[in-house]
Amino acid sequence: MATNKKLNFPKRKKKKSRQQNKMGKAPGTISYMGDKERGDSLIYSTTYNADGFETKEFKDLEVFIKEERAEKISWINIVGISDEPFIEKLGKHFNLNPLVLEDIVNTEQRPKIDEYDDYIFAVFRMLYITEEDEIVGEHVAIVLHENTVLVFQEVKEDVFDGLRGRITGKLGRIRSRGADYLFFALLDAIVDNYFLAVENLNNRIEILEEEVYNNPEPIVAKNIQQLKKEVLKIRRWIFPVKELISRLIDTDNPLITKDTKLFLRDVHDHTVEINESLQIYREMSMSLMEMYMSNMSNKMNEVMKVLTIMASIFIPLTFIAGIYGMNFDHMPELHYEYGYQVVWVVMIVLFIGMMIYFKKKKWL
Amino acid sequence: MATNKKLNFPKRKKKKSRQQNKMGKAPGTISYMGDKERGDSLIYSTTYNADGFETKEFKDLEVFIKEERAEKISWINIVGISDEPFIEKLGKHFNLNPLVLEDIVNTEQRPKIDEYDDYIFAVFRMLYITEEDEIVGEHVAIVLHENTVLVFQEVKEDVFDGLRGRITGKLGRIRSRGADYLFFALLDAIVDNYFLAVENLNNRIEILEEEVYNNPEPIVAKNIQQLKKEVLKIRRWIFPVKELISRLIDTDNPLITKDTKLFLRDVHDHTVEINESLQIYREMSMSLMEMYMSNMSNKMNEVMKVLTIMASIFIPLTFIAGIYGMNFDHMPELHYEYGYQVVWVVMIVLFIGMMIYFKKKKWL
Amino acid sequence: MATNKKLNFPKRKKKKSRQQNKMGKAPGTISYMGDKERGDSLIYSTTYNADGFETKEFKDLEVFIKEERAEKISWINIVGISDEPFIEKLGKHFNLNPLVLEDIVNTEQRPKIDEYDDYIFAVFRMLYITEEDEIVGEHVAIVLHENTVLVFQEVKEDVFDGLRGRITGKLGRIRSRGADYLFFALLDAIVDNYFLAVENLNNRIEILEEEVYNNPEPIVAKNIQQLKKEVLKIRRWIFPVKELISRLIDTDNPLITKDTKLFLRDVHDHTVEINESLQIYREMSMSLMEMYMSNMSNKMNEVMKVLTIMASIFIPLTFIAGIYGMNFDHMPELHYEYGYQVVWVVMIVLFIGMMIYFKKKKWL
Amino acid sequence: MATNKKLNFPKRKKKKSRQQNKMGKAPGTISYMGDKERGDSLIYSTTYNADGFETKEFKDLEVFIKEERAEKISWINIVGISDEPFIEKLGKHFNLNPLVLEDIVNTEQRPKIDEYDDYIFAVFRMLYITEEDEIVGEHVAIVLHENTVLVFQEVKEDVFDGLRGRITGKLGRIRSRGADYLFFALLDAIVDNYFLAVENLNNRIEILEEEVYNNPEPIVAKNIQQLKKEVLKIRRWIFPVKELISRLIDTDNPLITKDTKLFLRDVHDHTVEINESLQIYREMSMSLMEMYMSNMSNKMNEVMKVLTIMASIFIPLTFIAGIYGMNFDHMPELHYEYGYQVVWVVMIVLFIGMMIYFKKKKWL
Amino acid sequence: MATNKKLNFPKRKKKKSRQQNKMGKAPGTISYMGDKERGDSLIYSTTYNADGFETKEFKDLEVFIKEERAEKISWINIVGISDEPFIEKLGKHFNLNPLVLEDIVNTEQRPKIDEYDDYIFAVFRMLYITEEDEIVGEHVAIVLHENTVLVFQEVKEDVFDGLRGRITGKLGRIRSRGADYLFFALLDAIVDNYFLAVENLNNRIEILEEEVYNNPEPIVAKNIQQLKKEVLKIRRWIFPVKELISRLIDTDNPLITKDTKLFLRDVHDHTVEINESLQIYREMSMSLMEMYMSNMSNKMNEVMKVLTIMASIFIPLTFIAGIYGMNFDHMPELHYEYGYQVVWVVMIVLFIGMMIYFKKKKWL
Repeated sequence: MATNKKLNFPKRKKKKSRQQNKMGKAPGTISYMGDKERGDSLIYSTTYNADGFETKEFKDLEVFIKEERAEKISWINIVGISDEPFIEKLGKHFNLNPLVLEDIVNTEQRPKIDEYDDYIFAVFRMLYITEEDEIVGEHVAIVLHENTVLVFQEVKEDVFDGLRGRITGKLGRIRSRGADYLFFALLDAIVDNYFLAVENLNNRIEILEEEVYNNPEPIVAKNIQQLKKEVLKIRRWIFPVKELISRLIDTDNPLITKDTKLFLRDVHDHTVEINESLQIYREMSMSLMEMYMSNMSNKMNEVMKVLTIMASIFIPLTFIAGIYGMNFDHMPELHYEYGYQVVWVVMIVLFIGMMIYFKKKKWL
Repeated sequence: MATNKKLNFPKRKKKKSRQQNKMGKAPGTISYMGDKERGDSLIYSTTYNADGFETKEFKDLEVFIKEERAEKISWINIVGISDEPFIEKLGKHFNLNPLVLEDIVNTEQRPKIDEYDDYIFAVFRMLYITEEDEIVGEHVAIVLHENTVLVFQEVKEDVFDGLRGRITGKLGRIRSRGADYLFFALLDAIVDNYFLAVENLNNRIEILEEEVYNNPEPIVAKNIQQLKKEVLKIRRWIFPVKELISRLIDTDNPLITKDTKLFLRDVHDHTVEINESLQIYREMSMSLMEMYMSNMSNKMNEVMKVLTIMASIFIPLTFIAGIYGMNFDHMPELHYEYGYQVVWVVMIVLFIGMMIYFKKKKWL
Repeated sequence: MATNKKLNFPKRKKKKSRQQNKMGKAPGTISYMGDKERGDSLIYSTTYNADGFETKEFKDLEVFIKEERAEKISWINIVGISDEPFIEKLGKHFNLNPLVLEDIVNTEQRPKIDEYDDYIFAVFRMLYITEEDEIVGEHVAIVLHENTVLVFQEVKEDVFDGLRGRITGKLGRIRSRGADYLFFALLDAIVDNYFLAVENLNNRIEILEEEVYNNPEPIVAKNIQQLKKEVLKIRRWIFPVKELISRLIDTDNPLITKDTKLFLRDVHDHTVEINESLQIYREMSMSLMEMYMSNMSNKMNEVMKVLTIMASIFIPLTFIAGIYGMNFDHMPELHYEYGYQVVWVVMIVLFIGMMIYFKKKKWL
Repeated sequence: MATNKKLNFPKRKKKKSRQQNKMGKAPGTISYMGDKERGDSLIYSTTYNADGFETKEFKDLEVFIKEERAEKISWINIVGISDEPFIEKLGKHFNLNPLVLEDIVNTEQRPKIDEYDDYIFAVFRMLYITEEDEIVGEHVAIVLHENTVLVFQEVKEDVFDGLRGRITGKLGRIRSRGADYLFFALLDAIVDNYFLAVENLNNRIEILEEEVYNNPEPIVAKNIQQLKKEVLKIRRWIFPVKELISRLIDTDNPLITKDTKLFLRDVHDHTVEINESLQIYREMSMSLMEMYMSNMSNKMNEVMKVLTIMASIFIPLTFIAGIYGMNFDHMPELHYEYGYQVVWVVMIVLFIGMMIYFKKKKWL
Repeated sequence: MATNKKLNFPKRKKKKSRQQNKMGKAPGTISYMGDKERGDSLIYSTTYNADGFETKEFKDLEVFIKEERAEKISWINIVGISDEPFIEKLGKHFNLNPLVLEDIVNTEQRPKIDEYDDYIFAVFRMLYITEEDEIVGEHVAIVLHENTVLVFQEVKEDVFDGLRGRITGKLGRIRSRGADYLFFALLDAIVDNYFLAVENLNNRIEILEEEVYNNPEPIVAKNIQQLKKEVLKIRRWIFPVKELISRLIDTDNPLITKDTKLFLRDVHDHTVEINESLQIYREMSMSLMEMYMSNMSNKMNEVMKVLTIMASIFIPLTFIAGIYGMNFDHMPELHYEYGYQVVWVVMIVLFIGMMIYFKKKKWL
């Protein structure tokens, strides 16, 4: 059996996995885990208060650090996290714990919210739907200081465009509120996009449902399994968020005001709803598979019925024909004047009898 | 495989989903999420106390607001929630939080009960059975103030007719009690109708059960799956209510009197019972599917038996006939005087032997 | 598909269900929910203390109310609960909350124990096995006052005969103890009978197990499903009792003495055990269905083997016979002196070869 | 259908079950529930301290009671519990609650540990493997007094021989410690034997696994189901023990010293481990059944392939032979000189073509 | 049936299992449970502080004990735990509880962390991937004293090489921190390697997935079941760790500094993530089996279609040929000039009709 097993589990080309690269390093070591090409990081800074706002772009960290940000609320958006020394320097400037920096560049990090002495650190997955209708999950890390919110993301694409519009357009309350409201608004934007992911899954389930009923090909089974896997994957990204926000609502950390907690409660409701949907989709994809199996059985039944009807009708008739094809010297029926006709009559009667029998069994 | 996948998930006509419309908007933005045609809202106001009651209908919000409602209990029933400015104005009049208004018009809102400083806000699904025996779930939002209960619903149809009769007819205790009792009575009416939904599901399970035993067509499997989905959907509307009421019973909010809590305990018992039923229906629909599969196997077995019996009997007989249909010059049997008769005897013996064999195997 | 659906869910004769009758009525409305014919209620009163006991039967409520019951313990047994005015009057006499009266006549009421200011109200299902070996569940409501225990039941049949014998025969401690011990003893009798129900289920599982192994007919599958449903139904009656008794043990209600709690702990142990059994039966009925399916597959395999063996052996032989039944002018074999014999030899060799092949495959 | 049902559930010979015998009796009634033949009880008493030990055997309870046991630790082993008056008298001597005595003779009692004012009462199942490699569970009840441990068992066979050896041989700490250590040691011996039961189950799963792969006969399916049932049964005996010991560790009962609790923690770890194993075995037996079903499908596939290949090859060939067996006056082919040979060639080509086709489909 | 059962469960060669050897021994008895050959133990001692480090190897316990270790942090690595007297002597030197020593040599010990008065004792499984891509789990026991960490392992191979490098190379913080940081670092190294195990499982699932789709042989089903078992086994080693670390974070034991707890929180996050992965793999392996079954059904369908098409086409044609092979004296068709040709035309029409029919059914 050992040989067989090796056939089934060929040794993979021993490209060192990212996980393996990390082995044996000290905790707090900053090492980028993503699969994007390494490149420079860019800093987009948006500072605002009720009176106005200012947007700047920095390529050089030193320049950024010298900049004064005073009493305004700052949203510092770092795009590109593969440049580890850059992250480390920035981290020192904002006084971040090495463990935090490690998690910022660990693109496989599970969603988490950790409270430190003077900041709150959060990691989420932001989900968005691509042109090809696929759900993509991007790692995003958020640090909330008293007046500053740092957002780390791998690529420029994100789910915060609406939020940017609200700041620049002075829509809603955002400009007149603190950094914690901005933190909430980011979280809200991320969770709102979870609804789109859920909607996307729902569409796919509906399409698969139709396929299962009308056209149960093996490819449909494969797609159902793929869907199941995707639901599992997305659930893993979304599920912890519910608990995390719930704990954030209960915290007595002064960084989060009571007002903002009211809004967080709303986000929490959304995460509950999304998790319920995912749970239902899981059950529905199981039902789909069941349905697929039952339709397969059905088709088999149909095939077998055709075979059985054909064989049951024609094998006995062929037997009769065989009888009178025998070459015995003494076969009186062969010499009857209407022998041949009588045989035909017998055969037709048999045929009709069979048809009635199968009709009664509802096989026809 | 990629092409196949695209075949299975065709891009849907990119009608923007309601969810997408909401993306990027600030929380507390009032935007109607339902699928009813937009139209004017109507206000039905019922004020009453132990001495009497008065019913009025308003089309104009301004007129309504000017109206005095004094010391009596008021049940303000708003029908039609698609007119967002109307809702906003009304909300201001009653001093409601923007997040509350957002949830009032969000027809997809999950059941919730939120306590605010001077009012309690609740969202439920009211279920009723249509003429076509289908279960319909309508979004209903209730706000309990000290003397006023606001009820927001999308259409005029609701489950409160019995309650209205009790107020106008002065049946039971309702006229002599406070607004919190009215709130309870509304909730009670909603939960009572859940029983009808559960009864409806029960009927359908019973019908499907008979069908599965007597007539296991593929359409039955489809109906079972449909039922499963409906149970999941209804469960989602009903399940949270249990927990919500339980929390309401434990609250120390002065809006809910101790007396009313006793009644709420009764409603809570009902929700527990309904949830148990739904749980059982879920298991039963799974059993139904299992039964369906076993009946399919059964039918297949039967088909195969017919085929096997026919083939096993007539193929050997045909072989014998074939033997004596051969044209060898020297086949002594052909010239025996009773050769033909002997062959018939052999065949009949074989036939009977086979029949006995199958009889013993209980295939006949 | 719509038409199909209607075929499957025909509108039921719109007999108003009991649930529908209750819709819209105020909570606390006393309306009998059972399916027994309405009739008069009878009161059986047993009063006792350590010194003696007295049993009386009343048909007239007024007479009963006038009766003095003094310092003794009274067990008031009301048989027949369909006479609503009777129940209401009795309720007033014993000072019972309208919600309690509603639950007393609600024969669909889920098991519950509610503590009121000066009494404890409990609803259970008592189970007993009929002559036909069927499990019947009867609604029973119990009210514990300081010296009085009220027991409401639909029919005269109950599970308390042993208990009555212990009072009249002065067996055990019962006569020298308070009303709470009587309450416990009633509960104990009810739970003891649950064991009989569980035993009955166990017997049926064992019988079905044998049937599945020896005689897997479709009727067996149906019976397994029936059993599953019954386990679910009974579980629903029994499951809540565990939690209810546990709460009763923890209560600080003075109506329940510490001594009686020790006995209640024993009853609690029994309910735990019964629930465990039901859980196991559920798993076992699932296993039974699995086993049934596997036996069906098995039988199918057997059928297919017979078909395959018969066809595989005789179709090639028939082919050979067919060859020498052809009428070509030039077929040298036909004229060999031993041609016919040679063909027979070939056929027999083929037959034996096939048999050996199938033997080796263990199909024979 | 009703008649069918009766066929399936024949009324069992109405031998009164033990459970039925107990119905209606007062709680605290001592009635033996086991299936061993009733006989006399024997008392084995072992008294010891660090200096020495003494073993005695008593047949007469009176003699035993008169005996002095002084300051030493006593292990009183009662073998045979079917003699109810004996148990009652002994119970009175040791001041045991009637409910305790009831549980001592109730051989169906679920594992429990109850703390009374001056003793701790425990019931367990001790498991051991018989010569036939079957797992047997025996009821054992243990009472811990300050200096005395009572052990009640049905038969002489038990799992305490190693422990006895440690006392008589003065191995380990046991002789220098209190009664609570003896209590722990008994418990430890019982739980240690659970490991043997688990090992036994493991062996059987391994054997069944091999059988499923190599020889998937129906008997294997039956054995898997049997195994499942046994795992359920044993789980029921072992599962509660974990919780019970955990509660014993948390108790502040002075009968259990802090030192002994450290040892109990060890036993608790063992029960956790055993329960985990049982959980895994349950999942594995489910997998086994799944595997069995898949192997059955496999075999069916194989059978069907043989049939399909044989039929697909020889039916067309037979058809060709049939063509030239027709007796038309004008069939030119019949008179060709090499007609017969050509037909053979055609047939052989067809045959080879078919073989290649099936080879390509990997059916051969 | 009894005989059958014995066939299936043959008595195993009664080699006493290690578990049996342990039966009846006193708790705290040190008896090696592993399956490695017994041999001498080696001690590798690494002492270090911020200034430097020293590595020594001891074969003789006495020599080791005499050695002074002063103020430095010591990492004592014991390789080989089968020499029980050695372990006992060492244990006495470090003042370890006999129960701890028992667990150190019990290679089957479940992961645990126990706090004693002046040390913390932990047992884990360290997982690593062998050259053959198999996951191996080795028992490792760790004792944390104030300045010393004892590590007991069965073989020299371990997962701590990276950590050793960090001490000798003075990388990271390790040299300047206390023994509790070393303890954490060991734990971190163990948990990091769990990721490799998880990655290995993931690879295997992916390979099996491809196999299931492309090549659903029985060996694949077997491999899926093997995978399931391995996931269960590994889950059992990893699952408890999450809870253990969580409890360690909450402890107020002075041996663990607040700083180290921050790092432990990180390790805890990792264990949560790993457990989630294992949970997902379990669901995925179940899906794989389902997919395998559906592919099997599929293949069966295909086989049956071929059979049905061949039989349905050629059996009726053979029947027609049989008709005109009969030897009746009076069969007018036989003497028609184009009778033979007409029959051919009829046959070809029938053949084409059949083909169209099957095409329409999508069987071709």
